[in-house]
Amino acid sequence: MPDVKHMKWYGWGVEGVSFHHEDKPKLRPFVLDIIDLDLDTPPGAQTELSDLPIPTPRISDELLEQLTEAVGLDNTVSEDEDRIVHTYGKSIRDLLRLRAGDIPRVPDVVIYPADEAEVQRVVDITVAADAVLIPFGGGSNIAGSLQAPENEERTVVSIDLGRLRRVLEIDEDSALARIQAGALGPDLEQQLNARGWTLGHFPDSFTHSTLGGWVATRSSGMQSDKYGDIADITRGLRMVMPGRVLEVRALPSTSSGPSVREMVLGSEGRLGVITEVSCQVHRIPEQRLILGYLFPSFEAGVAAMQEISASDAAPSITRVSDANETRFSFSTRKKSKGVSVSGLVSKGLMAVLARRGWDLDAVCLSFVGYEGGTDHVSRQKAIVKKIIASHGGIGLGKGPGELYDQKKFDTPYIRDFLLDRGAAADVSETGAPWSKLVPMYDNVTAAARKAFAQLGTQGFIMCHLSHSYHSGACLYFTFAFKHDGHEPLVQYDVVKAAVQQAFVDSAGTLSHHHGVGTEHAPWLADDISPAGVAMTEALFKGVDPGNNLNPGKITVTPTTSRA
Amino acid sequence: MPDVKHMKWYGWGVEGVSFHHEDKPKLRPFVLDIIDLDLDTPPGAQTELSDLPIPTPRISDELLEQLTEAVGLDNTVSEDEDRIVHTYGKSIRDLLRLRAGDIPRVPDVVIYPADEAEVQRVVDITVAADAVLIPFGGGSNIAGSLQAPENEERTVVSIDLGRLRRVLEIDEDSALARIQAGALGPDLEQQLNARGWTLGHFPDSFTHSTLGGWVATRSSGMQSDKYGDIADITRGLRMVMPGRVLEVRALPSTSSGPSVREMVLGSEGRLGVITEVSCQVHRIPEQRLILGYLFPSFEAGVAAMQEISASDAAPSITRVSDANETRFSFSTRKKSKGVSVSGLVSKGLMAVLARRGWDLDAVCLSFVGYEGGTDHVSRQKAIVKKIIASHGGIGLGKGPGELYDQKKFDTPYIRDFLLDRGAAADVSETGAPWSKLVPMYDNVTAAARKAFAQLGTQGFIMCHLSHSYHSGACLYFTFAFKHDGHEPLVQYDVVKAAVQQAFVDSAGTLSHHHGVGTEHAPWLADDISPAGVAMTEALFKGVDPGNNLNPGKITVTPTTSRA
Repeated sequence: MPDVKHMKWYGWGVEGVSFHHEDKPKLRPFVLDIIDLDLDTPPGAQTELSDLPIPTPRISDELLEQLTEAVGLDNTVSEDEDRIVHTYGKSIRDLLRLRAGDIPRVPDVVIYPADEAEVQRVVDITVAADAVLIPFGGGSNIAGSLQAPENEERTVVSIDLGRLRRVLEIDEDSALARIQAGALGPDLEQQLNARGWTLGHFPDSFTHSTLGGWVATRSSGMQSDKYGDIADITRGLRMVMPGRVLEVRALPSTSSGPSVREMVLGSEGRLGVITEVSCQVHRIPEQRLILGYLFPSFEAGVAAMQEISASDAAPSITRVSDANETRFSFSTRKKSKGVSVSGLVSKGLMAVLARRGWDLDAVCLSFVGYEGGTDHVSRQKAIVKKIIASHGGIGLGKGPGELYDQKKFDTPYIRDFLLDRGAAADVSETGAPWSKLVPMYDNVTAAARKAFAQLGTQGFIMCHLSHSYHSGACLYFTFAFKHDGHEPLVQYDVVKAAVQQAFVDSAGTLSHHHGVGTEHAPWLADDISPAGVAMTEALFKGVDPGNNLNPGKITVTPTTSRA
Repeated sequence: MPDVKHMKWYGWGVEGVSFHHEDKPKLRPFVLDIIDLDLDTPPGAQTELSDLPIPTPRISDELLEQLTEAVGLDNTVSEDEDRIVHTYGKSIRDLLRLRAGDIPRVPDVVIYPADEAEVQRVVDITVAADAVLIPFGGGSNIAGSLQAPENEERTVVSIDLGRLRRVLEIDEDSALARIQAGALGPDLEQQLNARGWTLGHFPDSFTHSTLGGWVATRSSGMQSDKYGDIADITRGLRMVMPGRVLEVRALPSTSSGPSVREMVLGSEGRLGVITEVSCQVHRIPEQRLILGYLFPSFEAGVAAMQEISASDAAPSITRVSDANETRFSFSTRKKSKGVSVSGLVSKGLMAVLARRGWDLDAVCLSFVGYEGGTDHVSRQKAIVKKIIASHGGIGLGKGPGELYDQKKFDTPYIRDFLLDRGAAADVSETGAPWSKLVPMYDNVTAAARKAFAQLGTQGFIMCHLSHSYHSGACLYFTFAFKHDGHEPLVQYDVVKAAVQQAFVDSAGTLSHHHGVGTEHAPWLADDISPAGVAMTEALFKGVDPGNNLNPGKITVTPTTSRA
């Protein structure tokens, strides 16, 4: 077996790490209150790998032999666990299906090439055999981008890029790094940091997602206000296509026709296998600081972030939670003496705010990050402070920000903990112009509440604004409800579809940084118009007439959702 | 005739305005020295419109009738001058061909739709009749993007967007403006300025180019360091395609698959007719300032701009001329008492620099622009001043920058003045990573000198760096030589091809902001690799199987250049 790390086959993250609530005394009553779920409920029975109806690989001896010859015996894996790891990503649908043994099409073989030349051989062999090729990075996808079509009759080959994880070169004058596509976030940050550089790309999935996956799905990290989305960070790339390699030079800007770079970004394997990305990198800043703030309402917080985006300030993070997400944050206070958000938002402070006329149920927690030289940071802080004060906000200092910074990659573990106890929890995010954000927020929360009512369940939805741009921002929603135990996915789809429909009906995009896959494909025409879908299809069909490259993603409407 | 402004049919700019050198006493000896041309040479005989062998329109009565019905009689123009105006852009090749009567394919009719609905009718009628449709904005293109293929047998329809020039709506909260694609730079800035906003997009062609043209060719303006390229400014758009309109929503960011927005950007009419663009706009800044600096060498200037790009400073303009361009700037000093660059670079200052050990022949002029609140501007200035000093540069104050700001749109008139007197002058620009700029500069100037030697002419090439990004910048070259009077285009192609080849051989792009057209198409495969060309072709063929939409641009190698 090749030396490539994978997450647990049945859930998020590494074996042996999971969420627990014993040290957070306020969380149990909070969750009981919002979705009528007792966190002390024992977890449901775990599905074992041996329980799964894993089909025998459908692959000809000839193809298997060719692939083995291309990458070596150790890197041609047909074992059940590896095939299951590569069957789905980590969406709630993926996990529920696995637990239900609903695995209609498992990859027939998993291939671990060592370098681009081996990737080329695998692509050429697969396409020549009219098999299906699905690129796999960290497996963190939650949009259904990794699964084979359920009725796929052809051989399905999963190509895992995990052995391509080196920073190949840093052009220090140009602040450009050539990095292999299979590098996980920590892999590449470690290699860059050792030489004084950072990519500055920290999505929530950071620890378990790869550079190639980020590019293929148009990822965005939490410091995107400073470092840009992955689409900005990606200056050049290499992608193996049948018979040849696409080489997009690392360029600051160009007018060489429609952007091929921007065709590969977001292509989710439908055009080829990304092997290398030339990324813009930054010197590790002299100072990094995240400050906490409170606003009297979500509207006030959004208005403040909007004003910051139009000002001369250039923070690295802008984030405002709504009242529900703020209450959730406060409920995760630990009983130990360590710093916590609510530890800093003391009863005393709340009393002061109440005297000032704040509605304490509407309080919204916010973070703003600053990076750069100390002069730069203190100037940014001063500009932001003034703007926040003008919208009625107050500063909380460094504590909450440091806590946020430490906890930021842990959220997906909570989802799995709830799932084990009969609750469905998921995230959906969108981007929209500033003027549309508050109306959209109202529409989405109303749509979710309506869906919960339709299901007869007590659901919960919370939201934060993050990723500010000159003309708009991302709204990131998290929703949860206790499902009926019988058809959790049918119930989930009611809520998910309501949220997605509210996004596109409210001038938003189907996803700000999670991609399209199969999960969001039903809303693509609403988002980019039927003509945009036709253009995208023309590109896919022209490049891949045999439909061998990760078929069924982005432009094909699946049967699974949208009533 | 519809009320749409056009440039002179035979050259750049408006009738009655042309370059003259009488008030610049140093220019004549300078030009005599560098390319052996006497500016007092009387201009060659002007070609008259009546001298041109303008072919009779090849259009069926039926098609003409349908088009007339679609847009009205006044907006269906078959007059010679209008057809000639729409035959070419304003490249030196275009002007030399016109003067030589080399007009193998003139549009058969020019159509001026009033709105998107009329554009849709024109597109549908044209494609149904299997005619060719070429969108026309300001006609400033210098990449051959506007001409019909020489051997085109089908009817050629030029669709002029000049009547679609309104700012339709400003979403003030989101800093987004919906603007019609046919608006010229001054049209839209005037409408935006009246409400306190600016697009911040000021390419050299500003006065004679349109928003739709900028999008279709991936334009970049001189304040792009602050406002971004047109690709950044364009958040959404509408494009009429056969049978329907592509609607790309105005979004700050999205992960809805390959970017359709970035497919339209740079598409030069091959996918449809852009009718409307949703642009991010900015409040007119409190302060705008352009300061002049001198560097002891081009290398020092480039290194300083690189350091600025990596710093916490965020200027609006970064520009460094090489020694040749600096000498050219100094030679345009006016004899009147007004401010001039060389007026501020006095003999006294030069003497001081000489005492400091500067090589006065190597002195390089630089401009850095600052925009924003007064605090912001003074802080930026301070950071930049320190960096420039650390690279041996010195400040010249405000005078040169103000002069540059006034003169910036006049350069193309000089080209025409020289052309009238037997000299070929042209511009070619590229973008590359910081580490490649100085080697590329050396390669390009060496390639041009070799080409001049091959032609046995005394040529001149000068350059400036502009448009800085985190990972690189644009190098903008201007070259000129006295041609032999017999085959100026054959001679021109030797120099142009040498420069372009040096760009792509030195890790640069074929063009930073002038587009591909037919002029740069021979270098597309070198730039985006054969696989990238194939992807672009797949898109074009899928969208326009009949090859009706501005055929022969971007991906098709013309017969005109590259030996």
